[in-house]
Amino acid sequence: MKHDYPLAFQELANLLKTLPGIGRRSAERMVFTMLKWPPEKLALLGSAVSELQKKITQCPECWNLSSDGALCGICMNHSREKTLICVVEDASQIYNIENSGLFKGVYHVVGGKLSPLEGKGINDSNIQSLIRRIDANAVKEVILAFSSDVEGQATSIYIGEELKKKNVAVTRLAHGLPAGSDISYADSATIAAALHGRRPL
Amino acid sequence: MKHDYPLAFQELANLLKTLPGIGRRSAERMVFTMLKWPPEKLALLGSAVSELQKKITQCPECWNLSSDGALCGICMNHSREKTLICVVEDASQIYNIENSGLFKGVYHVVGGKLSPLEGKGINDSNIQSLIRRIDANAVKEVILAFSSDVEGQATSIYIGEELKKKNVAVTRLAHGLPAGSDISYADSATIAAALHGRRPL
Repeated sequence: MKHDYPLAFQELANLLKTLPGIGRRSAERMVFTMLKWPPEKLALLGSAVSELQKKITQCPECWNLSSDGALCGICMNHSREKTLICVVEDASQIYNIENSGLFKGVYHVVGGKLSPLEGKGINDSNIQSLIRRIDANAVKEVILAFSSDVEGQATSIYIGEELKKKNVAVTRLAHGLPAGSDISYADSATIAAALHGRRPL
Repeated sequence: MKHDYPLAFQELANLLKTLPGIGRRSAERMVFTMLKWPPEKLALLGSAVSELQKKITQCPECWNLSSDGALCGICMNHSREKTLICVVEDASQIYNIENSGLFKGVYHVVGGKLSPLEGKGINDSNIQSLIRRIDANAVKEVILAFSSDVEGQATSIYIGEELKKKNVAVTRLAHGLPAGSDISYADSATIAAALHGRRPL
């Protein structure tokens, strides 16, 4: 004798369930919480969701998140080096790299990894716009910042090939032991990468 | 050089962060996911949120969740015993009890626990409506299904006192070992409750 939630409750819970990391129980708890919110707060959340894709646009220069069709904060910042481009798979990764506080160049989002097994390629128009930026800004170095999985490495190699004809240094992020890690727990592929990329002390 | 998300992104993430179990990173991941959703799905979520409190109402009989001001599914179900009322703190707990599939009576939501330390009382109008239901339906038994914490027990005692003048059996849920639990890991308060409530085999 399973008792069902009211229809509007189920509809909302089913939509929330499709968000990353949200299971059925979490979605239901979220709806119960929203039911207790002041109506103004709920209205605010509803319109923030509805308006999200209208308000957030892609930067026409680097495809990072931006507002109202303008350049993103990084491309607008004159103190960033326009001759150093860090290529990332997804706009979300820009924020990870920015948090390190070390990178002073600009970014380029290619919007995907090469994955022939899943039949996925890279959007070639994003690579073409990268090549146009390299030409237009006399870019000196392109850093390929892809994940160190098989797709990430395949993508690095593919983009590296595309940039071979250009007079630009192409580098990729170092692979090795993560910061603060215990070597006893490192997997053999990580140790192999750390040995291979060893540097003079 | 912390790079901030666009304003609309931050506003939505800040609202999502106030939901139970959602931290800053989860909220940001949720917004990144929503940015990739088809616009129709995002619009659906936005309106499901905005309309939630309009569509979900409280059952005028038992204060369970309901739709459009009608009686809830349980109060409308003629096969449920109207002379057996299970009193719960919150509407969400009705679904936990229903999932056991064992309870054939009806519910009454009092909407809170007694917590003098936090200065919280129970909404007395909900207790009065419980007493009216007991009189109107010649109720035979009231089961108090509160949590087995201090506030839950205080609430049980308080409601039990209120119902003393009524010709109705008042019971509470058994306290003891949870199903499938190892006695080695049971805390002493649980063991004390299990000993105190022991039953003939």
